[in-house]
Order: sequence, then structure tokens, then C-alpha cells
Amino acid sequence: MSISRMEAFSDGVIAVAITLLVLDIQPSGVGTLKHQLGVLWPHYAAYVVSFITIGIIWINHHVMIGRLRETDHAILFLNLLLLMSIAVLPFATKVMAENVNKSTGQHLAAVVYAGSYLAMSLFFSILNRHILYAKPHMHKRELPVEQRRQILRRAVAGIIPYVVATAVAPLSPYLTLIICGAIAIFYALPIASGGTVLPVESDDQL
Amino acid sequence: MSISRMEAFSDGVIAVAITLLVLDIQPSGVGTLKHQLGVLWPHYAAYVVSFITIGIIWINHHVMIGRLRETDHAILFLNLLLLMSIAVLPFATKVMAENVNKSTGQHLAAVVYAGSYLAMSLFFSILNRHILYAKPHMHKRELPVEQRRQILRRAVAGIIPYVVATAVAPLSPYLTLIICGAIAIFYALPIASGGTVLPVESDDQL
Amino acid sequence: MSISRMEAFSDGVIAVAITLLVLDIQPSGVGTLKHQLGVLWPHYAAYVVSFITIGIIWINHHVMIGRLRETDHAILFLNLLLLMSIAVLPFATKVMAENVNKSTGQHLAAVVYAGSYLAMSLFFSILNRHILYAKPHMHKRELPVEQRRQILRRAVAGIIPYVVATAVAPLSPYLTLIICGAIAIFYALPIASGGTVLPVESDDQL
Amino acid sequence: MSISRMEAFSDGVIAVAITLLVLDIQPSGVGTLKHQLGVLWPHYAAYVVSFITIGIIWINHHVMIGRLRETDHAILFLNLLLLMSIAVLPFATKVMAENVNKSTGQHLAAVVYAGSYLAMSLFFSILNRHILYAKPHMHKRELPVEQRRQILRRAVAGIIPYVVATAVAPLSPYLTLIICGAIAIFYALPIASGGTVLPVESDDQL
Repeated sequence: MSISRMEAFSDGVIAVAITLLVLDIQPSGVGTLKHQLGVLWPHYAAYVVSFITIGIIWINHHVMIGRLRETDHAILFLNLLLLMSIAVLPFATKVMAENVNKSTGQHLAAVVYAGSYLAMSLFFSILNRHILYAKPHMHKRELPVEQRRQILRRAVAGIIPYVVATAVAPLSPYLTLIICGAIAIFYALPIASGGTVLPVESDDQL
Repeated sequence: MSISRMEAFSDGVIAVAITLLVLDIQPSGVGTLKHQLGVLWPHYAAYVVSFITIGIIWINHHVMIGRLRETDHAILFLNLLLLMSIAVLPFATKVMAENVNKSTGQHLAAVVYAGSYLAMSLFFSILNRHILYAKPHMHKRELPVEQRRQILRRAVAGIIPYVVATAVAPLSPYLTLIICGAIAIFYALPIASGGTVLPVESDDQL
Repeated sequence: MSISRMEAFSDGVIAVAITLLVLDIQPSGVGTLKHQLGVLWPHYAAYVVSFITIGIIWINHHVMIGRLRETDHAILFLNLLLLMSIAVLPFATKVMAENVNKSTGQHLAAVVYAGSYLAMSLFFSILNRHILYAKPHMHKRELPVEQRRQILRRAVAGIIPYVVATAVAPLSPYLTLIICGAIAIFYALPIASGGTVLPVESDDQL
Repeated sequence: MSISRMEAFSDGVIAVAITLLVLDIQPSGVGTLKHQLGVLWPHYAAYVVSFITIGIIWINHHVMIGRLRETDHAILFLNLLLLMSIAVLPFATKVMAENVNKSTGQHLAAVVYAGSYLAMSLFFSILNRHILYAKPHMHKRELPVEQRRQILRRAVAGIIPYVVATAVAPLSPYLTLIICGAIAIFYALPIASGGTVLPVESDDQL
């Protein structure tokens, strides 16, 4: 199967998932509009963080897939698992936004939220590793072992901040949100190009 | 009409349908969040099974369409019926998830769920048969009769597990869910490449 | 602007609209599941009719656009109006499905339903006419006047059944649904290839 | 990263956002259908204005992106911010439609509505400026300084009407809606080709 079909399908799923995020922002219809819009602030915050994070994942997904000349059953299936973890983010974002400022459930909501990102970054790294090490003969151009190692190291390092964000959830859901936001901002900055962390590779491949 | 347009439209419909599945997972807002997320377990199970199944259908759809050099009215229309049966899966998944663990309606829900997959696999086989036997002059490369027969045999054999899943629905909706899950896992495994069952063809075409 | 971009965007909007139709099918949660699914029958009927109609519009859209080598501001804008009339169909379908078997409002619902198809077929004919007569210099290959006239005559003739379906709405909403369904079936049949009616051109262009 | 991937993803997000607008049009189910459909008029107006505006943004987005031969991290990220401001429009449209004819909250709703368009036109101009001035070496063909200045002047001038629409919101939300509608109509007219205003460039680039 050609790479372009897999790219088109992945683009479709990610574009739909990122756009469905807005459906989670629903005024309650109770009280003044000012009040209704005001209490939605966790939704705005979670929306921005999720939108940018999914956008960055999309960028990195193409860098990763762009190395391939062709694809096979295992890559398609691992990619499907990655897409499944991305498609579930509107749900996790909603759970977070609706509960982060409540007196009960806020910690669990933060675990669900950061845990979903963690799952996504894990699936990303698994697919990345599979492509880099198990399928070098499918690459467009040969990558030296050292470069492959470096790419994977970065992807795996990108898992760590989400482990931290998940781990602090029982302490403070706000801290979880801030960490997830900081990760998104970090990868959006040019500094990330020569960068290190996230479920994301550096820009030097773009 | 070129194949690429039909592929792009099919990709779009399948990508939207697979991503809309997440909208079925909605916390009730009643009780603690832990309770709310806990009682959603049938939704998680149905989500994973449906996501992987639609993903596999997408893979097989391209193998099937990839044999064609061009398309015509009949193929476009049969493809439209197949897409219609795929687009209805978020509904069937929701019905299953909301009723599988209830004391009434659970058997009917399982019939709807497995029956929808069954319909999809039927439409898939009908289109496959039409492409293989009625439109060989539109193929990219000629397929020997024996190979065509084998491809179709596999596709038709892929209907059987869904007949079973539908038939056991009156006995146990859980068994239906397990069978549907097992089908998804089976086709995700590398063993399916040389494989047999499902609304799905083997991997040797990928 | 290249044709391929306009095609990709149109494919996207139509694919999303056709897949959103399923969101209108929602069990009420009141009464037994058998009852809930039973009372949804107008939704199933409206879903199938709308899905096939949008699918046929998609096929014809590509035949129409496929004549062009390039596009301009006027074509893009008329195409946008056509897409707007397609994107509104999930709403019209829902209104029809929810009211067709009620004692009040059923006639208005049928007017909305058939009227929406009528609007769509009008926008289709306007764009078709514009492409055929105002922009012949943008065609991929020159079409004889007689052929252009014939294509347009068919497209305009395709408006008539929807005028009828809208006109009978005050008499019987069921008749409206049946006419809309018959139109969809007619254009799905091979006979339509040498055909006449609908917001749709014949197949001989495919 | 190739331009085509960025175009495909942007097309996807914009196509989904424009089609999701219809989900905001929901009959209340209370009262006669005639009444239910009648009170939805602000939804119809807001739907048409938003649909055409997003459609025009899509047209202009491609003119802007079409100047590029390749892309980089900064362009991808600024484009992501623009897409985020587009994806939020179904929410802003809903807030406007539900409150424009209420006795309280109508002014705030109009601020949200016009303010969202304003944000979108700002992000559009920022990306446009970045592409024109910071990345001329990535252009497909060299643009004279004067032409680049003119393009940007138009884009920036396109922000002004939305500033006005936002500014009059505290006076009259209807005036805001009318101005936003007038902007959409203006850019849809052929006169806009040699035109001036909006988050949109003129047609002479098409």
C-alpha cells in the first residue's frame, strides 16, 4: 500500500478529532451569558492545550511517516492504534474541562487527561521505534544507526513530561493542566527544533 | 471517473465515521466521576472494537479498490452502499454500549451491533465480487481466475464470524462483543496475512 | 487556483455532511429498546434517502467539476453556495424524521425536507449552467453547443421531481418521502445512465 | 515538509468546521414545528454568514499558502493557530445565534461573534505577513516588494470591518450581524477581486 493513502487517512482522522474538540465547549444555558461563558474557562484552556498538542502530533506524525517509501500490515495496525489514541482526546479533554475545578473527581479527571496524552506518546514511540528499527528497508533514504538512535531517544524522552503530568494529577489537577500546556508551548517554540522532549521529533527533519 | 476521487471520498467518510465513535462516550454527569467513568466500560470496549474493525475495513477497502484502474456507475453505487453501512456503525456501537449490561434490550442491542457488522461485510463482499468478476477489464493488472476465486472465498468466509456473532446475540450479548473483538484482533495479527476469515482480504495484496 | 484543491475541499464537506447524518439517529432512552428502535423508523428511511441522494450529488459534482481545467472566483463562490445547501441536509433530514409521523407539523417538515433538496438541485443547476456557458474557455476539452445544452437540460429536468415532492408535502409527507426515495433509487439504477431527471447529470460523462 | 500535506490538513480542518456549523441548528421540540423553526431564524442568519465567511477564508488561505514552495516549523505553527481560530467559529456562531434576540447577553454574544472573526483575521494577517516578509526564499516565484506590501495592506485592511463589527456590539448585536454579513457578501462579489478589505486577499492571485 502506498504511503499517500495512509497519510490521507491519518490526516482525515486527526483533522476531524482536532475540530471535534470545539463540540465540548457548550454554554449551559443557565444564568447570564456572562456567567455561562465565564465558567467555561477550563474548557477554553483545555481546548487550546489539546488543539496545539494534536497539531504538534500531526506535524511529527508526518515527519515520522515521511521516512517511509512504502508500508505494511504491522505499520498500518500500529498507526491505527496511534490514531485511536488521538481520536479519544476530545473525550479526555471534556472530562478534564468539566471536572478540573470541582471539589470531587478533579484528580481523576487530570489522570484521565494526562494519561491519554501519555498513551498517545507511548503509541507514537512504539510506531516510531518499529519504523526506525524493524523496517529500515522501507525507508526512503538510509538513516545512520546513530541518527535513528537519536530520533528515538528524543521520542522516548518526550514521554517523560506526560509521566510527570500524570503523576502530579493526584496532587493538583491545575498543575497537570499547566504541565500539559507547557509541553505544547515548548514544542511550538523554535527552540524545540534542536530540541529534546515530547512525543514529537525535532524539526530538523521537516 | 478516476479511482483517486473515489478513494479520497471513501477515506473521508471512513475517517469521519471512525472519529465520530468518540462522541458516543459521554459521562452522565450523575454521581462521582469515578462512578461515571466506571459505568462507561461497555463504551470503551465497544469503542475499541469498532475503531479497530473500521480501521481494518479501511485497509481492506484500499486493497480492493487498488485493483481498479478506473471506475463506473455500478462500482460507485455499490461503494456508496458500503460507505452507508460503515457510517451507521457509530449508531450501532452506541446502542450496544448503552444496553449490553442492562436487564432488558441487551439481546436486541447485540443483534443490532453484530448485524451492522454483518451488513457491512455483506456489502463489502458484494462490491468485491462485482469488481473481481463483472469488471476484470477495469483491473490494473489481470488476475488469474484461481486468484480471484481465492480472494472472494476469503471475503465471503469473513462473513461467517459475524453470522455467528449475530446468532449468539439472543444467548449472550457479552459473547457477541467478545466474538466481534476476537475478529478485530485476529485481523490485526500478522497471522491474518496468510489468513482466512472476515469482511477483509488477506494482506498479501498490501 | 487548481481544480484539485476545490475538489478536495468539496469532497471533505460532502464526506462530513453525509457522515453527520447518523448523528440524527438517537434512541430516546424511554421505554424498551425494541420500542425505542421501532419508533425511529422514519429516521432510518430519511437516513437512507439522504445518504444515497448526497452520494449521487457527490458523483455528479465530480462529473461537473471534472470538465474544468482551472477555476475562478465566481465558480468557487457558486460552489460554496452548493456546498452550503448540501451541508444543511442533516438538519432537514432530522426535521423530516422527527415530524413525518406526527399529527401536527408533518406537512411543514416535508416542505423543509423536499425544499432543501430543491434548493440543492437549483444551486447545482446554476453552477452547472455557469460552468457550461460562461466558462467554456476553462474547459479541459471543448464541448459542442448541442452537448452542453443536453447536459444542462438534464440537470434542469432533475429539478422537477423535487418541485413535485415539495408541492405534495401539504397533501402527504409520506408521499414526499416516497418521491425523494424514488428519485434516489432512479439515479442509482443503471437506467439513469442514459437518463433524464435530477440534480444530477447522466453517467455517460463518468 | 511539503506544502501539499499542510494544504490537505488545513482543508480537512476547515471542511469539518464549516460542516459542523449545521449542528448548531436544533429545533427545541417545544411548541408547534412552525414556531420551532421560526424562532431559529438567528441560527439561519448566523449559519449563512459563518458558512460564507469560512468559505472565503478557505479560498484566501489557499492563495496565501499557494505562494509557498515549502514550509517550516514557524509557518506550520502559525497556520495551526489560524486553524484553531477557524475551528472555534461553530462555538461563536452558536453563542451569537442563541442570544442575539434575547434581552440580556445579546451584546456580549455579539462581541464573542465578531471578536472571533477578528481573531481569525488577525491570525490570518500574522501568517500572511510572516510568509511575505520572513520567508521570501520559500516562495514559488519572487514577489516584488511593492506587490508584497500591497497584499499585506489589503489583508490588514480586512481586519478593520471586524474591529467595527466588534465595536458596535455593545450598541446593537443586529448591527454586528449585519456588518459581518455585509463583509461576507462584499468578498463574495466580483468587485472584491480588485478589492480592498477583509481577512482575505483579492482574487487577482487566484
